[in-house]
Amino acid sequence: MAALKSVKALWFEDGALSVIDQRKLPGERKVLRLTTVDEVAAAIRDMTVRGAPTIGVAAAYGMVLAREGDRVPPDEAARILRETRPTAHDLFVGIDAVLTAWKEGKDVRAAADAYREAIVSQCKAIGTAGAPLLKRNANVLTHCNAGALATVEWGTALAPVRVAHGAGLDPFVWVDETRPLLQGSRLTAWELKEEGIRHAVIADNAAGFFMLRGEVDLVLVGADRITMSGDFANKIGTYEKAVLAHENHIPFYVAAPWSTFDARLSQGKGIPIEERPVAEVTAFEGVSSAPGGSFARNPAFDVTPARYVTAFITPGGVIPPGDVGKVFKRKGGWA
Amino acid sequence: MAALKSVKALWFEDGALSVIDQRKLPGERKVLRLTTVDEVAAAIRDMTVRGAPTIGVAAAYGMVLAREGDRVPPDEAARILRETRPTAHDLFVGIDAVLTAWKEGKDVRAAADAYREAIVSQCKAIGTAGAPLLKRNANVLTHCNAGALATVEWGTALAPVRVAHGAGLDPFVWVDETRPLLQGSRLTAWELKEEGIRHAVIADNAAGFFMLRGEVDLVLVGADRITMSGDFANKIGTYEKAVLAHENHIPFYVAAPWSTFDARLSQGKGIPIEERPVAEVTAFEGVSSAPGGSFARNPAFDVTPARYVTAFITPGGVIPPGDVGKVFKRKGGWA
Repeated sequence: MAALKSVKALWFEDGALSVIDQRKLPGERKVLRLTTVDEVAAAIRDMTVRGAPTIGVAAAYGMVLAREGDRVPPDEAARILRETRPTAHDLFVGIDAVLTAWKEGKDVRAAADAYREAIVSQCKAIGTAGAPLLKRNANVLTHCNAGALATVEWGTALAPVRVAHGAGLDPFVWVDETRPLLQGSRLTAWELKEEGIRHAVIADNAAGFFMLRGEVDLVLVGADRITMSGDFANKIGTYEKAVLAHENHIPFYVAAPWSTFDARLSQGKGIPIEERPVAEVTAFEGVSSAPGGSFARNPAFDVTPARYVTAFITPGGVIPPGDVGKVFKRKGGWA
Repeated sequence: MAALKSVKALWFEDGALSVIDQRKLPGERKVLRLTTVDEVAAAIRDMTVRGAPTIGVAAAYGMVLAREGDRVPPDEAARILRETRPTAHDLFVGIDAVLTAWKEGKDVRAAADAYREAIVSQCKAIGTAGAPLLKRNANVLTHCNAGALATVEWGTALAPVRVAHGAGLDPFVWVDETRPLLQGSRLTAWELKEEGIRHAVIADNAAGFFMLRGEVDLVLVGADRITMSGDFANKIGTYEKAVLAHENHIPFYVAAPWSTFDARLSQGKGIPIEERPVAEVTAFEGVSSAPGGSFARNPAFDVTPARYVTAFITPGGVIPPGDVGKVFKRKGGWA
């Protein structure tokens, strides 16, 4: 099982947060050392580090750097980090976990470490809970990257795949390339290749084609924010895949740690959706793919209504969308 | 109205077929002069010329070049051209239009000219028939390029948009970028910009997002082959958009000249689907977007079942999918 944890998105040592620069993969495995809260905020904003659980952990360590490095006051540090990206709920949970400890005079480094450990162990639990949904040689479709890079270790959507692979069940993964930033072809394919898991990269346009032909057994995605009704936000295009799965009677599962659940939102319409620079759509690696003067739009996330979700795969087990509010409120928080 | 016909995909003069190299747009407007049937076949295969009606006309002139240029026998020329691409029906219709004239001892150049004129006038008729479906300031979503580049002049899906724009109705077009070859962002956006029609390029993943938000009034696409049941093939991803339109109660129209209708096929499952090189998915402009050693799949078309089609916009008017077989058989052919 050693290979199964080979990918790690970030780690804290010698007074710095080291992160894999996810913009450079798969061509280059470059590690950046971040030593101030501003550097962490910039890395989150420009998607050097991305994936809801990972940016939550990165922000937690950003708070540690604010305290121990550049001596930014706690509320100011939290504000800087909160303003980086609006959609993923984990960001705010990670910040608050350290902010609370700081204000209570506790060890901020220990608080960040505990937060990271909780997220990693929750993702491992997601793998255990979700793996039984994969029969031998299951054909899984996934969108974006909800792997170790997105969650520090293990992944959310990819955790059950890793566990099934480790158990010898030989899963196969259809990898949506996930335009505009290609987190599927660049990151998910890289993780799967690193671990020897069978997969094929496809244009996002081809997911429906393979569903209609009966070549997809289940869809597994991550989430950026899950509301109490079961409506959830995830990478743009997730809603399309959910509708297509529903139309083709294919189970659609959403895997997430508790930090992704937002107890204050009852409906998906309350989730703020980030729009990113249009150059992500109109150019690739600096080469224009649209005429100068053409307009573009670039919403980074969409909201999928709960009615398209078969179940959520959580650290506490597999729960239907109608039970989300009840289960999460009974649980009482992310820890 | 002069600007409305400013884009022309190909023309025949001085013993050569001149074609706009559609691989180079929008960065460069390069014209290639083709003088042999083999050159025409290569240009179709590598998508220098593309779009079902355009490749039908290109193939018709390829037959002319076989006769008047490199003196290839008629059946051999037809075979060379037929083997270029399997999915679009227009290719075979264009070849046969000239092959029949050739074998009957008629003027092959006149036969090809007549075929081109028929396609162009049918596309113009599609524009007239379809324009009333667009209210003032209509928000249209289109996929791939079904404009003048795809049909020599006017377009199929874009013909009603051109007519509505010419009538001062100020339509707006959501342009799916259409991975992997980006015919939307590269070609459709270029045509719309050339003619001053409002538009925005979006990732294919974002089409559902704008549909769910009520920002799409109707979907207009072209087709590569339409069967007698109303099932039809078009660029990969069309099926996804059709399902999403259906789910969001948005009318979904398919525009095509008669050359796209295949009287010999009753069901979509009989349509051969081309799979193209995976490098179209795993690299962009020579830069890898997936790790070396990752597998990929690249179906170039999908088949949308008739139940998702509101109506077909044809040169003979707007017809529901259930009437396709009856109407086309009564008509008796492409002319």
